[in-house]
Amino acid sequence: MNVNKDLQNERNKCSFNVRELTEFIDGGKNRTLERKHIEKLILAQKDELFGGTPEDYLSHKEKYERAIQTNVIILKIVQDFMRDANGGDLTNYRDVLTTLLNFVVSREGTPFALHFMMFLPVFLSQADEEQQMEWLPRAWNCNIIGSYAQTELGHGTFIRGLETTATYDAATKEFVLHSPTVTSYKWWPGALGHTANYCVVVAQLHTKGQCHGIHSFIVQVRDEETHMPLAGIRVGEIGAKMGLNMINNGFIGFNHVRIPRRHLLMKHAQVLEDGTYVKSRNSKLNYGAMVFVRVVIVFDSVNYLSKAVTIATRFAAVRRQSQLKANEPECQIIDFLTQQHKLFIGIATCHALKMTATKLWDTFNEVQQQLRGGNLERLPELHALACCLKAVSTADTAALAEGGRRACGGHGYMRSSGLPQTCAVLDAACTFEGDNTVLLLQTARFLVKVWRGLDTLKLTPTVAYLRTTLTEGFNDKWDNTVEGIIKGFQTVSMRKISECVSCMAKRMMSGMSQEEAWNMTSVQLVAAAESHCRVIIISYFHEEFVKVSSSFSPALRRVMKLLVELYTLYWALDKLQDLLKYTSISKTDTEQLQERYEDTLNALRPDAVGLVDAFDIMDEILQSTLGAYDGRVYERLMEEALKSPLNAEPVNRSFHQYLKPLMQGKL
Amino acid sequence: MNVNKDLQNERNKCSFNVRELTEFIDGGKNRTLERKHIEKLILAQKDELFGGTPEDYLSHKEKYERAIQTNVIILKIVQDFMRDANGGDLTNYRDVLTTLLNFVVSREGTPFALHFMMFLPVFLSQADEEQQMEWLPRAWNCNIIGSYAQTELGHGTFIRGLETTATYDAATKEFVLHSPTVTSYKWWPGALGHTANYCVVVAQLHTKGQCHGIHSFIVQVRDEETHMPLAGIRVGEIGAKMGLNMINNGFIGFNHVRIPRRHLLMKHAQVLEDGTYVKSRNSKLNYGAMVFVRVVIVFDSVNYLSKAVTIATRFAAVRRQSQLKANEPECQIIDFLTQQHKLFIGIATCHALKMTATKLWDTFNEVQQQLRGGNLERLPELHALACCLKAVSTADTAALAEGGRRACGGHGYMRSSGLPQTCAVLDAACTFEGDNTVLLLQTARFLVKVWRGLDTLKLTPTVAYLRTTLTEGFNDKWDNTVEGIIKGFQTVSMRKISECVSCMAKRMMSGMSQEEAWNMTSVQLVAAAESHCRVIIISYFHEEFVKVSSSFSPALRRVMKLLVELYTLYWALDKLQDLLKYTSISKTDTEQLQERYEDTLNALRPDAVGLVDAFDIMDEILQSTLGAYDGRVYERLMEEALKSPLNAEPVNRSFHQYLKPLMQGKL
Repeated sequence: MNVNKDLQNERNKCSFNVRELTEFIDGGKNRTLERKHIEKLILAQKDELFGGTPEDYLSHKEKYERAIQTNVIILKIVQDFMRDANGGDLTNYRDVLTTLLNFVVSREGTPFALHFMMFLPVFLSQADEEQQMEWLPRAWNCNIIGSYAQTELGHGTFIRGLETTATYDAATKEFVLHSPTVTSYKWWPGALGHTANYCVVVAQLHTKGQCHGIHSFIVQVRDEETHMPLAGIRVGEIGAKMGLNMINNGFIGFNHVRIPRRHLLMKHAQVLEDGTYVKSRNSKLNYGAMVFVRVVIVFDSVNYLSKAVTIATRFAAVRRQSQLKANEPECQIIDFLTQQHKLFIGIATCHALKMTATKLWDTFNEVQQQLRGGNLERLPELHALACCLKAVSTADTAALAEGGRRACGGHGYMRSSGLPQTCAVLDAACTFEGDNTVLLLQTARFLVKVWRGLDTLKLTPTVAYLRTTLTEGFNDKWDNTVEGIIKGFQTVSMRKISECVSCMAKRMMSGMSQEEAWNMTSVQLVAAAESHCRVIIISYFHEEFVKVSSSFSPALRRVMKLLVELYTLYWALDKLQDLLKYTSISKTDTEQLQERYEDTLNALRPDAVGLVDAFDIMDEILQSTLGAYDGRVYERLMEEALKSPLNAEPVNRSFHQYLKPLMQGKL
Repeated sequence: MNVNKDLQNERNKCSFNVRELTEFIDGGKNRTLERKHIEKLILAQKDELFGGTPEDYLSHKEKYERAIQTNVIILKIVQDFMRDANGGDLTNYRDVLTTLLNFVVSREGTPFALHFMMFLPVFLSQADEEQQMEWLPRAWNCNIIGSYAQTELGHGTFIRGLETTATYDAATKEFVLHSPTVTSYKWWPGALGHTANYCVVVAQLHTKGQCHGIHSFIVQVRDEETHMPLAGIRVGEIGAKMGLNMINNGFIGFNHVRIPRRHLLMKHAQVLEDGTYVKSRNSKLNYGAMVFVRVVIVFDSVNYLSKAVTIATRFAAVRRQSQLKANEPECQIIDFLTQQHKLFIGIATCHALKMTATKLWDTFNEVQQQLRGGNLERLPELHALACCLKAVSTADTAALAEGGRRACGGHGYMRSSGLPQTCAVLDAACTFEGDNTVLLLQTARFLVKVWRGLDTLKLTPTVAYLRTTLTEGFNDKWDNTVEGIIKGFQTVSMRKISECVSCMAKRMMSGMSQEEAWNMTSVQLVAAAESHCRVIIISYFHEEFVKVSSSFSPALRRVMKLLVELYTLYWALDKLQDLLKYTSISKTDTEQLQERYEDTLNALRPDAVGLVDAFDIMDEILQSTLGAYDGRVYERLMEEALKSPLNAEPVNRSFHQYLKPLMQGKL
């Protein structure tokens, strides 16, 4: 391979073993080998997967057709591999899912994501055993493709307000699904447009003249042979979006569609043949699937951010622009401190969020065990944690990817860079599966409840610091170490929650209702929940690093320690107003933090390319003119431009039709 | 018109006369009438302009063809109107330009923008009289369409590094244009792909064996009759981008292309027939066109932001979601304080930036007068001001439009909302005509120079506060009024510049070169330049409001005063860390600011829809399912979805080809 000289030079001077870090990121040597094996299988079908006109030049309809073509191939490869690797057993669910998500080769998503991310998990958590026996094998094998229809045109966040009805008819032992208004049309479900033939539908359950709130039903949408929509069903796709145009988001409306009684998912609540409604033991049990999905979103966001920083960092090493000193050759833009400031935090964030999400995933599995034993104690905490972590992770990764994109200048605006599409995916994640502001307010609600019961409640681990920080006081001498900063953030979070509570109390004293006071304080509540989340992420990152670093070689330990340091300093400086307001940090301390931050950027500079190489994203997955491993940036930009169908003719027909008459004054 | 009830209700309760504000925004009653007249002319050609498949479903090539079709029609309407209105005189340049930019009906830009925004202004400022006589009339009438080719694949920011050469051949009295490398290909010029037939090309001028740096040349690119590229020229479009796909950005390479000597633009520097180079009087004179373009960018950014806030605010009034109180009907989301926090600052920003840009524009014209008189005194200040104002305006409008987009939840991700395209235009502006980071560093360089000469230099108006703030001291008692906050920001800016200078001095003392110290301090320098810009914008907004408000009715004065207040409070809270670090503001003060900010949001709430109605953007320009005047949000979303060609068939062909074999295990 003919590698750009500057990029090669960066690799030569890297201080640590890149493969060692790659294996750590993958979760072990075997995982890396496994991944590389799948990559080989994908490359074997390179022509069919990556040939033809680039997707960015296609029409909306052509993009969908391309998406089906390539994603069917990928899905088949992953399925076969997992089946072989696990002796026919596909039940290691997170493996299948993350492997699949890692190998999305269409830059605007895959129509099969929802089948694995929502349809199957919801089914697993809400169908009873008999239903699982009936449906799961076919769903696992993709004999049917499912979607998950909850959101409606008129309702997203507030699911209690959903309008779709499922009314039980005891005479025929069927539910009648109906969409009474335009706003009750389901809107957004991935794959639902023209791909899925089954769907879990969330609707208001009515029986014996009473409404029992929302429940989930499995509904066949299209004929399995002809794929034609079934009678009474109006289904289609919702149209072009900012990104993710290969997800095939759809709408669906029901005109008195009848489904059998047993299509209500009955693990928790049931409707008996005569129409009697049997309540769920605990309505909070459904939180499980939501927590699962939100953790997956954090992992997936890290995935996309690592693409963005790989592209932007390699480009910054290849791009030469301006002189640091007069009469010297132009420098690599990665030598500019402002550029390091934009990029390196992105690298650190990938590790910080991945370690946090892994820990959350483990906690999730523990709590699942406890749930099975009937212990619901940690469920609210886990839910609150997943809410804020999803919100902060998606917001941070979206902002940092966008920062990386802009750091590539104009070329980052080219779709051939892959950056606009990557940013658009991360952007969507700020909204889907719970709007970030709404999620942070849910976390805030939990925190306020904890704060109000601080004297009496047994505190679960992630909020225990609220009491200790309060007891130990926050006026301790400030300490500029990572541990000191974490303590500072704990104080900030504690004080913010405390102030929100006081502020609401004051407002209620002056005559506001509790709800009005909550609303008037909500901007501060959102900020408090974010602060809490920063405590969790920074302290998890630090703790996990300390835990795993003993297994690292000294060189890797050194560079990872720099990343932990960088991450902590970055957020200390970003949230300086909080530290200044709530802790005893001095102006001199802040100046030292700033200087140490600048020095840390410099210390990371020589290893930056090595750090993104360690993400080990192959060119065919990265799909970027700016970020390919060999650094042939300019040649690739030109090659991709020449593939534009507009460039196939020297003169476009619109010249004769419109432009020439205009120029010659004959219009 | 059947208007959504909630929206109508908002309009009924608006406290001020919307038309009064509209006329103020337009710049007078007559301007409003003029605009409405052009709108009528455009609506008369509604079918041809807005019919057919929505542009979001088209392929890249089809988008270009649509762009030419619609923009030729619009251009013709504006031209005819301006000619009639000005008795054949089209020289009121800013009018033509802003009118044209206001009426861009393609959501991804117009291929004619560059002709007016760059080609003509550069020509006006760099061509000598004879050249202007020869070319201008044809350019004014669009008999030729021009582009401006400066940026190359390998060089954007650092124009001294451009590689394209123009070598004078005294024997034939011609320049030979040449692109020696791939990286020397011009890349990005709008309209250059398949639209423009002329182009101003920036190249390194060589004569008599010497290089004299970059100069501008006018070059014919395509035959006027056939539109075929001329010999030796390789031209095409650069491919799909994140947005602005109707701009038709192009690339061009020259293979020893010969152009006459008089195609060098000779207002400032000349090459005589024998090849003698005659230097420009002052190399800074070219700053004029750059300042002009940057002011236009600020106006245009405001334009796009006002679209985004119109859409998001109207949607927030129509959308009902969740309950503020249990058992009440669902509330309009505009009632949530978090929503007001996201939207109202956008409305205030439109006014703040527009007033600032107007003042900068007037200053620009004054300085142009002085330049003609040989007085270059204010040029560096003006240049520094235009740099930071372009950077801060584009960054703010991009962030606020994106915030507004996200505030619409999932629907803001739909292209039919118009928001993704609007955000993508604003995003591009952060990079084009000077990357924002680079521009802020240019302002910083000016500020550092001023600071170092504080005792001796005569200070120009926009930096005079540096001395007065220093002299009057910054430890005065803090004052929470708008004036007090402005004074606080002046102190912050002064202190930051001062600290940057100390920091660099310290680094140089410890052995760094001046350039290294500059680079290591550049993150802080960028922040200092931003602070300076905040001083300018907030104080201009405040001053201009005080100046014009006497002509407002009391009701309008009240609401505009709230906007000034909101804008100031928002930035005080956003930049609290600076105020805490550098002024005597107390924690109690900050709490009062927060409370006043929340109260101001509430006070603006009833007038929010009126405020965006006052931007008076007609539906055909706004092109948004979420933002149309009548608020038929959900019906429009569905109507637009149904226009997707993918929805024309119930089953897509990819089902038979790929999906069915997969589902039936026959792949």
